[in-house]
Amino acid sequence: MRDLSEIRKDIDSIDNQLIDLFKRRMDCAKEVGFYKKERNIPVLNQQREIEILDNVQEKGGEYGAAARLLFANIMELSRALQHNIIGSGKALRETITHAREMPSSDGVKVAFQGIKGANSYEAARQLFPNAELKNTRTFEDVFEAVDSEKVTFGILPVENSTAGSVSAVYDLILKHRFYIVGALDMPIEHCLGGLRQSTLDDIEIVWSHPQALSQCENYIARKNFIPVPKANTAVAARDVAKEKRLNVAAICPPEAAKEYGLQILDRNLQDNPYNTTRFIVISKELYIAPDANKISLCFSLPHVKGSLYNLLCRFNSLGLNLTKIESRPAKGKDFEYLFYLDFTGSVRTANVIDLLSQLSEEMPEFSFLGNYRE
Amino acid sequence: MRDLSEIRKDIDSIDNQLIDLFKRRMDCAKEVGFYKKERNIPVLNQQREIEILDNVQEKGGEYGAAARLLFANIMELSRALQHNIIGSGKALRETITHAREMPSSDGVKVAFQGIKGANSYEAARQLFPNAELKNTRTFEDVFEAVDSEKVTFGILPVENSTAGSVSAVYDLILKHRFYIVGALDMPIEHCLGGLRQSTLDDIEIVWSHPQALSQCENYIARKNFIPVPKANTAVAARDVAKEKRLNVAAICPPEAAKEYGLQILDRNLQDNPYNTTRFIVISKELYIAPDANKISLCFSLPHVKGSLYNLLCRFNSLGLNLTKIESRPAKGKDFEYLFYLDFTGSVRTANVIDLLSQLSEEMPEFSFLGNYRE
Repeated sequence: MRDLSEIRKDIDSIDNQLIDLFKRRMDCAKEVGFYKKERNIPVLNQQREIEILDNVQEKGGEYGAAARLLFANIMELSRALQHNIIGSGKALRETITHAREMPSSDGVKVAFQGIKGANSYEAARQLFPNAELKNTRTFEDVFEAVDSEKVTFGILPVENSTAGSVSAVYDLILKHRFYIVGALDMPIEHCLGGLRQSTLDDIEIVWSHPQALSQCENYIARKNFIPVPKANTAVAARDVAKEKRLNVAAICPPEAAKEYGLQILDRNLQDNPYNTTRFIVISKELYIAPDANKISLCFSLPHVKGSLYNLLCRFNSLGLNLTKIESRPAKGKDFEYLFYLDFTGSVRTANVIDLLSQLSEEMPEFSFLGNYRE
Repeated sequence: MRDLSEIRKDIDSIDNQLIDLFKRRMDCAKEVGFYKKERNIPVLNQQREIEILDNVQEKGGEYGAAARLLFANIMELSRALQHNIIGSGKALRETITHAREMPSSDGVKVAFQGIKGANSYEAARQLFPNAELKNTRTFEDVFEAVDSEKVTFGILPVENSTAGSVSAVYDLILKHRFYIVGALDMPIEHCLGGLRQSTLDDIEIVWSHPQALSQCENYIARKNFIPVPKANTAVAARDVAKEKRLNVAAICPPEAAKEYGLQILDRNLQDNPYNTTRFIVISKELYIAPDANKISLCFSLPHVKGSLYNLLCRFNSLGLNLTKIESRPAKGKDFEYLFYLDFTGSVRTANVIDLLSQLSEEMPEFSFLGNYRE
């Protein structure tokens, strides 16, 4: 058996040769890019790629699968290079170039679901301090208010919320072809709001949204309270104030208790201390804040081995950092997946706009959802 | 400008040399593996890897980032090889070897949340036709019933459900150190259940769980019904039967309407025709069905560029197909992410058990959640 330092010397020499060959191969890919640009030939030649990969796998012997994977990456990187040379993704580049800057919040109209004191209301106030806030009955109504241009922006909870998972809201955003233009992670505190005349010992029944009740399950069990579901936490607070029963309290945000003149009998009831809800701002037009640092995308990938992996190659070769990824089967379609993906960056930097342009060219169901400050 | 065929000839020759070098490098990695095995040296030498990558990036010139990415993959593949040589992941191999086969459903005890006619009840009946079903008040109670061995299995909805997203349920599974031993995707139909004396025209008010109400939002708006939230859909059906108000109906599964003697006044109310809920079976002990075809994992990754990409390299080099991936920030920890991942396969095949063993060795918070039939 050779000594470790000897094997490593061997490895270092192989690596040097590998780097040289890789550089030469990328130079060739560049040359092909210019050739294709001149003759208006598309970048992707799937048949040639599959031929190369099959050949590589065969020649790779016991390392065939690994070699195939490596070459799939090399071809992914080559294609990225060629897209940049050709200047792919003109439509998306155009859209992004024409994005407006976020307007001042003074007097701008913003829709939120629920009533005053609801978490969406608080999120709207924090995101747009001087806006004209309009409340709606349902989440779908928020979309409609934006669609009919009654408001410029809509506020939606996307995680840990009654609207369900992020993908349900993203579906609606895609359906309406809206953009995400802002986001806020808001810590959610549940408190016990009772009448001024009540004490904590008086309380036997608690009213709240079913999800808030379930988030405070341990607390409710410990206190032996009877939980009763209400449409939302702010409605629970309003009804406690209205019905004036000494033994009933609402589980609601402190702001809602305050809004309806309730006394805070107990605080931080939620079982999980890191309880936050993410809110996003939607709009019909694309606005990009100067300090935008988060990009959201949606796309579909075929149920093909390695398709996600090959895609991530693009992000990583540019040093871009994913902050969220979520997959789910495309509804009504077999063997196809939808991906929701967030990453850190600004479309005002060249490598990001290049990447998005490449993806918009190669993926049939690619959607750029927005670039916003988080 | 050279002709395309000439450039391609060049590329083919480069590729042949690349393959040869890659094979030689993997042979060296193997040699290092045997060396490390003999001397009991750990596989990962992070410092040497970073030195190599920095060197590669520098020598790569304009292709530096791409070269770094390629070599990160090569080292990932080398480490996988070395783990197999060393026989990493003994504890996990042991656990899997000792997994039991699923028992017959005759008389086995199974807990579900809710009351008879609830979707969880239907899922339990389909998954365990001859079991003794026990209902609980909350989801946490299902976990407790399993934990205290009052039941062998528990049924939980994990998507599109009142329990929230899959990650909330997965968190509880991890907390209890339970396994997933089965799964079922059940189409969810909402119907309108009214009294035998009622007709569709009588109905003015609908009772249901808030999520069911929101899933039928368009229908409710079209009919101009007043939606009133109830704890769950089966409770809504039971209360409609009990309170006997001609103008009130429940939005509930047809099974719940039947269970409480209601008449089905209208069917398929849900806005989305592909409305399904995923149910999983949890247990304290690891059971693996002979025809298990789905594997679930959870692990954390540092917020480091490319860490997910490098991980997927392992799956792809083995031809394993991801069917689900979901990330979220690890609560209370900065710069760290939790991943929930499903892939197709059986731990009874060598490459899958090898991969899981490698991951269990390299990732501090790796959890094998189960291998089950779907």
